[in-house]
Amino acid sequence: MILLFTDFGIAGPYVGQMHAVLRAAAPGRPVVDLMHDAPAFEPLRAGHLLAALVESTAAALAGAGAVPADPPVHLAVVDPGVGTERRPVVLRTPAGWFVGPDNGLFAPLLHRAGGAQAEGVRAWSIDWRPASLSASFHGRDLFAPVAARLARGEPPPGTPLSPAALVGAGAPGDLAEVIWLDAYGNAWTGLRAGALPDGAVLEAGGRRLRRAHTFGEVPAGEAFWYANSSGLVEIAVNCGNAAALLGLDPGSPVRVADGGPPGRT
Amino acid sequence: MILLFTDFGIAGPYVGQMHAVLRAAAPGRPVVDLMHDAPAFEPLRAGHLLAALVESTAAALAGAGAVPADPPVHLAVVDPGVGTERRPVVLRTPAGWFVGPDNGLFAPLLHRAGGAQAEGVRAWSIDWRPASLSASFHGRDLFAPVAARLARGEPPPGTPLSPAALVGAGAPGDLAEVIWLDAYGNAWTGLRAGALPDGAVLEAGGRRLRRAHTFGEVPAGEAFWYANSSGLVEIAVNCGNAAALLGLDPGSPVRVADGGPPGRT
Amino acid sequence: MILLFTDFGIAGPYVGQMHAVLRAAAPGRPVVDLMHDAPAFEPLRAGHLLAALVESTAAALAGAGAVPADPPVHLAVVDPGVGTERRPVVLRTPAGWFVGPDNGLFAPLLHRAGGAQAEGVRAWSIDWRPASLSASFHGRDLFAPVAARLARGEPPPGTPLSPAALVGAGAPGDLAEVIWLDAYGNAWTGLRAGALPDGAVLEAGGRRLRRAHTFGEVPAGEAFWYANSSGLVEIAVNCGNAAALLGLDPGSPVRVADGGPPGRT
Repeated sequence: MILLFTDFGIAGPYVGQMHAVLRAAAPGRPVVDLMHDAPAFEPLRAGHLLAALVESTAAALAGAGAVPADPPVHLAVVDPGVGTERRPVVLRTPAGWFVGPDNGLFAPLLHRAGGAQAEGVRAWSIDWRPASLSASFHGRDLFAPVAARLARGEPPPGTPLSPAALVGAGAPGDLAEVIWLDAYGNAWTGLRAGALPDGAVLEAGGRRLRRAHTFGEVPAGEAFWYANSSGLVEIAVNCGNAAALLGLDPGSPVRVADGGPPGRT
Repeated sequence: MILLFTDFGIAGPYVGQMHAVLRAAAPGRPVVDLMHDAPAFEPLRAGHLLAALVESTAAALAGAGAVPADPPVHLAVVDPGVGTERRPVVLRTPAGWFVGPDNGLFAPLLHRAGGAQAEGVRAWSIDWRPASLSASFHGRDLFAPVAARLARGEPPPGTPLSPAALVGAGAPGDLAEVIWLDAYGNAWTGLRAGALPDGAVLEAGGRRLRRAHTFGEVPAGEAFWYANSSGLVEIAVNCGNAAALLGLDPGSPVRVADGGPPGRT
Repeated sequence: MILLFTDFGIAGPYVGQMHAVLRAAAPGRPVVDLMHDAPAFEPLRAGHLLAALVESTAAALAGAGAVPADPPVHLAVVDPGVGTERRPVVLRTPAGWFVGPDNGLFAPLLHRAGGAQAEGVRAWSIDWRPASLSASFHGRDLFAPVAARLARGEPPPGTPLSPAALVGAGAPGDLAEVIWLDAYGNAWTGLRAGALPDGAVLEAGGRRLRRAHTFGEVPAGEAFWYANSSGLVEIAVNCGNAAALLGLDPGSPVRVADGGPPGRT
């Protein structure tokens, strides 16, 4: 299976042309649009989202009794540096293959895999180039063909690289800020919920936020945090828009303030 | 074939993660995104839309000479009660399989199939649960794996249930209100056009509306109704936005006022 | 492979129902959404976009070493005349099959193929009609079933037609205006970049624009033109919105003004 994760949006021909390449170059392999509104031009925030989605997708497949025999191939493109000298890379972890730019996008995955030295973690610098490479669309011209090769079972067309040399290698596994807003104004953060005690109190947007397990246990209009369906801390308001109410944007800081009663700070 | 019908929207990873589960758990079966902007949190309105789409899709396949050998599997999730005690169900009618929450979403389908007692109509309460079930995303964790099983030809993983016990069973086959607005401001209603005489006059938004067969037969700026491509009464304005002009929203009432000349009421 | 190019947008059930027909009527063939936000109701502008995308997609497949054995089938629907007497057609060029309305949408393709008399260029008027044809959705009821037949290797279900009789046959290969705006406000034009000298200066929105090869070589806030990933002249502003800054809309004229220093005209 090939999973796409980009910040291209769905307007225009960008996603479609990548699909055309993948379907032609890896016949018979399913191609899934995991997300095309990843944090735009923000590889690190996008990377925390990607790492969480990879883990929760794998858990959902396991829950459905449907773990594929072949490792999934993730084609991940959040690439503000397209056309500059940033390095195209392939990363292999126990979670699958990853193809994209070396700009920090894969750092959170590396952390979750146990770090650059962990068993089963390898990296390559992509040496292959197509006959014709557009200046602005490496997703279609470079990364998609490489992802197709991996999906066909071929080795990465590049030179082995120490995973420790990847941009951001060694970065922490959590990012204490808002990384993405969904259509309802819920704020995804880069904090893994599993690492927080059930009674943890967070501070964001000038408020102290308690944990809830469902929206229904919170009075309408009140802000709270919960472990979302991808295992991240998400800030929400029952029957409301958390981003608007708390003034949250991607990049807004979130602080873990254990203990103390909730209320305005 | 597995057809998805949800109110998730296409932002974020929700639809993509459902696809990942379906593609892994039902290899080789086509997965089609029928619609992801179904009436949000409104199972009954969504149900009238779903019933019409199921019928018009089947008619289109028949028209193309392409009726599949296996019944289609519809994964339908408009589920404001996720995380509460509402029942996950499977419904079987001559139109195919349906998987989703028991909250009225399937009532219009039941009516179109001839009612809860009709031949070929059966229901099940889903007993199966995944090893890990998120609080907020049963579409991915519960309904998608069940839909995949049905697409593989397996029986519903649950307990037979009287279709008459489904929420909304016995509800009428039409809903005299606006159920959905398209991007151009055309207002879909829950009225089946085939049940109305050609000369039927409707009232909506304070106007009396005559039927037209094409946009072209109506002067620019004038409101009318017509039988849309899914067999529902749709209110439109030639070269204009019906929702804006007539002040229509989902839930706005529509009245069949046979006879009398069109004009303001 | 079947590629979809429409102005339907992705709201509602329109694209989904076309997919259902294609998947059922051409089992096993990949279906790719090339673009669903083509210039709405503007067949000629849409046609220039389609011709460029067809060429750049083919180049990307060649670059990936993945040229399919069977010609691609393009299902192209930008059809303001649906329900009127405009003719449904099939066009065959060395670039593949094209199915859609005869309203000028295929004229730029015809030019790129070498004109109506060129070798390998043929056309048919579609005679086949489904048992039931909706007034407003020929994409689902008529064009998709025909595209599926072609993808299955069957001949066009129609009568041969001289390609010279297609609407717009003989039109030039370039259109000196803005044809589409992307989500960032970049303005695609109907000019083929390959036909312009590297030093060509353009005029649009009252400014003179020089060519750049990457966004990075231009100061922030400055407008320029470049050869985009589909080989068209695209007007952009580094770190800015060209459509807003230059007042460009689809249809805005673009003039090639070779020579002379850039600056306000």
